[in-house]
Amino acid sequence: MSVLISEVGPRDGLQNVKAVMPTEAKKAWIAAEAATGMREIEVGSFVPAKLLPQLADTAEIVAFARTLPGLTVAVLVPNARGAADAIAAGAHKLTLPLSVSETHSLKNLRRTHDQVIEEAARIAAMIRELPEGDRPHFEGSLSTVFGCTLEGTVPDAQIARLAERLMEAGCDEVGLSDTTGYADPSAVRHLVKLVRGVVGDKALTGIHLHNTRGLGLANVLAALECGLDTIDASLGGLGGCPFAPGASGNIVTEDLAFMLEAMGIDTGIDLDSLFKVRSIVADALPGEPLYGFVTDAGLPLGFTPATQREAA
Amino acid sequence: MSVLISEVGPRDGLQNVKAVMPTEAKKAWIAAEAATGMREIEVGSFVPAKLLPQLADTAEIVAFARTLPGLTVAVLVPNARGAADAIAAGAHKLTLPLSVSETHSLKNLRRTHDQVIEEAARIAAMIRELPEGDRPHFEGSLSTVFGCTLEGTVPDAQIARLAERLMEAGCDEVGLSDTTGYADPSAVRHLVKLVRGVVGDKALTGIHLHNTRGLGLANVLAALECGLDTIDASLGGLGGCPFAPGASGNIVTEDLAFMLEAMGIDTGIDLDSLFKVRSIVADALPGEPLYGFVTDAGLPLGFTPATQREAA
Repeated sequence: MSVLISEVGPRDGLQNVKAVMPTEAKKAWIAAEAATGMREIEVGSFVPAKLLPQLADTAEIVAFARTLPGLTVAVLVPNARGAADAIAAGAHKLTLPLSVSETHSLKNLRRTHDQVIEEAARIAAMIRELPEGDRPHFEGSLSTVFGCTLEGTVPDAQIARLAERLMEAGCDEVGLSDTTGYADPSAVRHLVKLVRGVVGDKALTGIHLHNTRGLGLANVLAALECGLDTIDASLGGLGGCPFAPGASGNIVTEDLAFMLEAMGIDTGIDLDSLFKVRSIVADALPGEPLYGFVTDAGLPLGFTPATQREAA
Repeated sequence: MSVLISEVGPRDGLQNVKAVMPTEAKKAWIAAEAATGMREIEVGSFVPAKLLPQLADTAEIVAFARTLPGLTVAVLVPNARGAADAIAAGAHKLTLPLSVSETHSLKNLRRTHDQVIEEAARIAAMIRELPEGDRPHFEGSLSTVFGCTLEGTVPDAQIARLAERLMEAGCDEVGLSDTTGYADPSAVRHLVKLVRGVVGDKALTGIHLHNTRGLGLANVLAALECGLDTIDASLGGLGGCPFAPGASGNIVTEDLAFMLEAMGIDTGIDLDSLFKVRSIVADALPGEPLYGFVTDAGLPLGFTPATQREAA
């Protein structure tokens, strides 16, 4: 069994850090992490530079990341204009967030649900015009899907309908995003079943979870048991969502990779090399806290990663 | 569905804190936590006071805790002498640790496996002499069962045989203890199956997990899925094992109770009251760090605990 960890630190992490990481440091981070065996990295977001100066160099970062062999270069796009920039830069994967809470959607993206679906349709049309080999993968991400800090729980029927509308608009896939850190293992099971019931198993494979309330890896376990195989995480737990108060705290990539490898699930990642990438991030963001448990405690005595066990 | 959280902070937490918590503060803590609906608390350990002065008042604490209605008063006993004291004090549940790593057993309890099994047999004999209604529940806890910081992985056959020998010696039950924080969800599933295969399902219902490498609650989820229904945790994550270097970090009671209630699993505990118990511990142990996520982040907007959902 294998699972794809999608590193979101250079996007979700850095957009929540006040300091602007120098472009060369980002490149060093992404190159070093790709070299550990990380196969997908969300390297930035095509938002106006005045809104997120931390990510103003995303086009340059995408161009650089494309030179790294075997790496899927993912980006966030808030709208069709961002998607056009992402396509021009050559990103392999575009993620458009749609907040299932319309209140949160208006605050976060300044758009109603109808407007976001409209953007999704425009992006899908743009992608269809490209030669087949050049088309990026296009995911619609259902954010605040486990509940919203402004609205609370969002009704199942609304979530199901939005998932359906994203697919009808032309997304290749939808994803679940616990923007607010409200998820628990039962809710993960419930929502995977609900959304897969609408879009089919193949159109929901990934989840973005936070560790805001300490349940991040338990929620991952529930997601794996449901058959999801793409899990977002952030090196050192950098980042969160600035628009959902108190909702910071991505899952820590190092702890997630350790859990999976300990369970005999191949991530393709060399853990010791991964742990060393922390110093690149720490040096480039002085004073910014990095989180994680396994890097403090160290690997267990006699620990054998999944791939070495398979080979044995 | 319901799960019993067994609070181990007054024992496992305090034995790893240098400061000695005043007896009255311990009583206030235990009384306040019992009042939240916590049904079992490990209140101390019958070890020589010179070894663990923090727990020298265990007999007095047991006597006090027995006055709290509905509370199971649990204690740790390192040997038959401690068990005699525990029985005299009126503890409802005795736990004798047996480290499946003999190296760790010698360092921690200064006894070989044969000597610990001998102590277990003596304790069981003592209990059998009591009138039926006065007999405490007697658990043999398989510690370092997920691996040892000195020996690494302990062979399955050795673990299975020790579980069997504890039951033959007269334990009512065995438990699994991740002393070193080495557990992962697959290892939990594997060991529950292994040990239940030897002792039967009814003689393995509880697990003691640490969050040393961040996997604590994911491991709990795996344990629940295997049918275990008694989970140890420590308020504020206080404590760990001083004999296993780098292995500190009990599961945080607050985060565990939140996860279970969020999943619709009844713990009997009122979360808001539980969170308030932290201040008693914090005030009595100035400067000692308390851990946990949900108490920082707060409960999700619109959160409904399990019991209220059942009633609805």
